Amino acid sequence: MKLATLKAGGRDGTLVVVSRDLVTCQAVPEIARTLQAALDDWERSAPQLQKVYQQLNDGTADQADSFIEMECHSPLPRAYQWADGSAYINHVELVRKARNAEVPASFYTDPLMYQGGGDAFIGPCDPIAALSEDWGIDLEAEVAVVTGDVPMGASIEQAAQSIRLVMLVNDVSLRNLIPGELAKGFGFYQSKPASAFSPVAVTPDELGEAWADSKLHLPLRVTLNDQLFGKPNAGEDMTFSFAQLIAHAAKTRELGAGSIIGSGTVSNKQGNLHGSSIANGGVGYCCLAEVRMYETIEHGAPKTPFLRFGDSVRIEMLDVTGASIFGAIDHEVAHYHGRKE
Amino acid sequence: MKLATLKAGGRDGTLVVVSRDLVTCQAVPEIARTLQAALDDWERSAPQLQKVYQQLNDGTADQADSFIEMECHSPLPRAYQWADGSAYINHVELVRKARNAEVPASFYTDPLMYQGGGDAFIGPCDPIAALSEDWGIDLEAEVAVVTGDVPMGASIEQAAQSIRLVMLVNDVSLRNLIPGELAKGFGFYQSKPASAFSPVAVTPDELGEAWADSKLHLPLRVTLNDQLFGKPNAGEDMTFSFAQLIAHAAKTRELGAGSIIGSGTVSNKQGNLHGSSIANGGVGYCCLAEVRMYETIEHGAPKTPFLRFGDSVRIEMLDVTGASIFGAIDHEVAHYHGRKE
Repeated sequence: MKLATLKAGGRDGTLVVVSRDLVTCQAVPEIARTLQAALDDWERSAPQLQKVYQQLNDGTADQADSFIEMECHSPLPRAYQWADGSAYINHVELVRKARNAEVPASFYTDPLMYQGGGDAFIGPCDPIAALSEDWGIDLEAEVAVVTGDVPMGASIEQAAQSIRLVMLVNDVSLRNLIPGELAKGFGFYQSKPASAFSPVAVTPDELGEAWADSKLHLPLRVTLNDQLFGKPNAGEDMTFSFAQLIAHAAKTRELGAGSIIGSGTVSNKQGNLHGSSIANGGVGYCCLAEVRMYETIEHGAPKTPFLRFGDSVRIEMLDVTGASIFGAIDHEVAHYHGRKE
Repeated sequence: MKLATLKAGGRDGTLVVVSRDLVTCQAVPEIARTLQAALDDWERSAPQLQKVYQQLNDGTADQADSFIEMECHSPLPRAYQWADGSAYINHVELVRKARNAEVPASFYTDPLMYQGGGDAFIGPCDPIAALSEDWGIDLEAEVAVVTGDVPMGASIEQAAQSIRLVMLVNDVSLRNLIPGELAKGFGFYQSKPASAFSPVAVTPDELGEAWADSKLHLPLRVTLNDQLFGKPNAGEDMTFSFAQLIAHAAKTRELGAGSIIGSGTVSNKQGNLHGSSIANGGVGYCCLAEVRMYETIEHGAPKTPFLRFGDSVRIEMLDVTGASIFGAIDHEVAHYHGRKE
């Protein structure tokens, strides 16, 4: 089934079930007012939500409204746990190759993961707000899953079974703040501001054969200023599955229902250069940093700039029939002008 | 005023107002069912909560119950943002001195901060659960604040004004996992499992003169296995105030209401050795890593072990009359045996 959160209704918005074709939706306050509430009580809520989903798809739902992506917040407008892996080691290899450094052998067996903050996600069609273009604003197009409760020390199988929902992410990154921050040794903080998620989150069964081995085997489409920028397959070159990433996250702690675990920037290897642009016949990229690294390797210096105010980013995934699965993250970079009340 | 969260009532528990002497409390479902709900709507809820607090202190509350710390969860059983600074640079100096390394000059002007996870905090009297003593289980006794909404790029003054509540923390750390994890470059994740907070959170005005310049000027008392282990003053040697830490956290993002910002391990300098134990006449420590570093500097090797299953930790702060302000974090280290339902 497909779920989304409309902005109306307070900080956590209003949970709606969305039809498979993303045309209609229905609020379900008698089942759960918010997605977090549904996840907190999934055994009870999921079958009831599934029934509404069936009715929406059959055209028999009695309170169906039009589904409008622009009215959506991220499925979880705020989350208690947002941890992002870096499962596409090609992305890491490319970064390292650009500065003639080796990738440690452990990176192929022990996932990289950073702890993100979940208090104020960006809505899928809301601006990426920043105070300065000098921060080096970049997108990172990714896939993420939402878990149920996961015990400490969960096995890969337990981790796989804990996956409740799948969605897309733009893990906005401030590239020019990263080197200084990582040099301090405590990881990312200022360089990883609020992320945005796709309007719709879907259960794994909804993905059919595209969901296999806890990976999503479809191209992730990234458009920059209306030009196709990347279409790498999220199922290829993913060194660690979502089950492995969840098990990594849960090694020393329990994960609470509603934890979001990200894949890291989707990246396909495409030969020795670790990447190639759409214009060069490759599958392109899911972040600007990669094309800049590719340019550095090929030409000695990057030439593609980071995002500027007014630039637009669209992230989407289509099924084999060409239909959008999750709706689109579709937003512009904008100068921050204070909190919206 | 003083607020706490009883475990009863679901994942987010039940908000109660607590009398100043921590003897009575009253649930306030007509004002807010949970602390997060109160923080989400603080302008409305705070004056009403304050009225109940006054009644509890006057003995005129009509639904007062006994307040029992053992029945408490952390004030926010889960939080959307938990970021922990490292504001006591003496702690960093001690770590570095033990390995003959210098502290970078920037550490005195640019706060260290790591992003924690907030999905499953430990209750103040619940066990520190781990799967192995080999992880090097350590406490970190700290002070933390809870903020309201903070705009991106907040000034120090705005940050100071955003502080809603103050509480204590045990930021449990797994020392033996830290070196390997930090070497990967993405910061802490597995080495910083769930934290515990004091039973009671208090508004800054409740602290009187002890709250000045966004710092809490009272000793933090740490007891290990019923022996006093540390009593450093949280207002001394704090290089960055909470206002500075909040402004750092908000530099590139908004912070949502209910964000928790921690001080880092409280640590007083006490002369050239950067520390001295209670037995040696010093103020002692707020984590085992510091006494082990002190032992390394003095004797060439650490001799105090990390925490073992069955060890107990108590963290508390007394006012000038000797009364407990926040109640006590008081728990044992235990082997993890699966999720409690």
